[in-house]
Amino acid sequence: MNYKILLAYDGTRFSGWQRQNGGDNTVQYVVEKAVSGVLGENIEVIGSGRTDAGVHAKGQTANFKTDKKINGDEFIPAVNGLLPNSVAIKEIEIVDERFHSRLNARAKTYEYTIWKAPYNDPFGRNYSFRCTDIDTEKMRRAAELFIGTHDFKAFCANRRFKKSTVREIYSVDIYEDYETVKMRFTGSGFLYNMVRIMAGTLIETGEGKREIGSIEKAFASLNRDDVGFTAPPQGLCLLEVFY
Amino acid sequence: MNYKILLAYDGTRFSGWQRQNGGDNTVQYVVEKAVSGVLGENIEVIGSGRTDAGVHAKGQTANFKTDKKINGDEFIPAVNGLLPNSVAIKEIEIVDERFHSRLNARAKTYEYTIWKAPYNDPFGRNYSFRCTDIDTEKMRRAAELFIGTHDFKAFCANRRFKKSTVREIYSVDIYEDYETVKMRFTGSGFLYNMVRIMAGTLIETGEGKREIGSIEKAFASLNRDDVGFTAPPQGLCLLEVFY
Repeated sequence: MNYKILLAYDGTRFSGWQRQNGGDNTVQYVVEKAVSGVLGENIEVIGSGRTDAGVHAKGQTANFKTDKKINGDEFIPAVNGLLPNSVAIKEIEIVDERFHSRLNARAKTYEYTIWKAPYNDPFGRNYSFRCTDIDTEKMRRAAELFIGTHDFKAFCANRRFKKSTVREIYSVDIYEDYETVKMRFTGSGFLYNMVRIMAGTLIETGEGKREIGSIEKAFASLNRDDVGFTAPPQGLCLLEVFY
Repeated sequence: MNYKILLAYDGTRFSGWQRQNGGDNTVQYVVEKAVSGVLGENIEVIGSGRTDAGVHAKGQTANFKTDKKINGDEFIPAVNGLLPNSVAIKEIEIVDERFHSRLNARAKTYEYTIWKAPYNDPFGRNYSFRCTDIDTEKMRRAAELFIGTHDFKAFCANRRFKKSTVREIYSVDIYEDYETVKMRFTGSGFLYNMVRIMAGTLIETGEGKREIGSIEKAFASLNRDDVGFTAPPQGLCLLEVFY
């Protein structure tokens, strides 16, 4: 049987999602260890995609196969009991044998959080990037330019990426709530570091350090140097994966 | 001159607010060290009250005296630069020479956060107490009984407390938002552990482990054994001090 799980994790102390040879400090490793421990067999857990070191998730999805019949009401607390308290399984459901959490993902939503104040947020320091001041109206106008299908090569940290760098962005919404500004990106898929480079570009625009037009220029030049910095990982959270 | 400051801190790794002999792991110690460092003289910072180890604050107030004239726009970033990133000064204002942050406090608001879900919250584990299920309507009915002037001796952890244990509670509000339940207590003042024991009593009531009437019984018996457990510190946050 094939099971899909919904996961939340605080990525602060992890070296990212993806299991690495010889390293046990990844989310995939601890989830596989806990699921395997409960089921009493070696389980491979396939995530919807990697998240970088320090990046969080409230809605990461993954799937795994086993011959055992799983009862969620027993399985979820048992797995969570073996997981570190920075990771939690929220839901489990049985899915079609052919379901693959990465290959079948149709879209994803990521959220980037900015803390806008003359002082640090003692509660958000691992979950946001601080700006002293930022113009959200400018950010909204720049964010519009991302919508649609574009070649995002300039927004990709992997310069040797051989496959297509064309992606479709469905929405980029900017929310403001007291000292917090959130940018929510929904798209068909994202290249390596693409959300963080889009976020960095919008931040520089909002801070008045960058012209709004530089985004259109980068779609033509495909040059990484024409866009903003890679915003730090702690502000980023994978909110939802759509199938 | 006498200055009043507004502070926020994540209490997770601190041994509470109050400076202790030989210990440098208190909020008061790090704030005094940072303020003294910026002003170049030894400064004593008087808090509105102690907070326990692990308890947080978004609106702790304190005051200190110096002969120097302080410009907030320069002073706040300078002090925050010397503070650990779990503590921040948000505001500073000049106040009357006679102002004392503890003696002049007229009321305080504390908030206690419950996380209500079959799984842990990876983001709130240091800021909430988890219950699998809780009846907020029952909690609201029990909370009503706290309102007004009562002898809270049963809700005080210090059994040898010699002074009056009569306090006035102005409001206890219960808010619900998805998996989060917040209890907000506003009162003239609170005895040692009083908010945490009130919170624990409301939690046990909401979980169906305790009759609502036990609160009235405790006001008559003044017996600590008639009320609930001391809810753990990480769910508690000092929100505001009123003058």
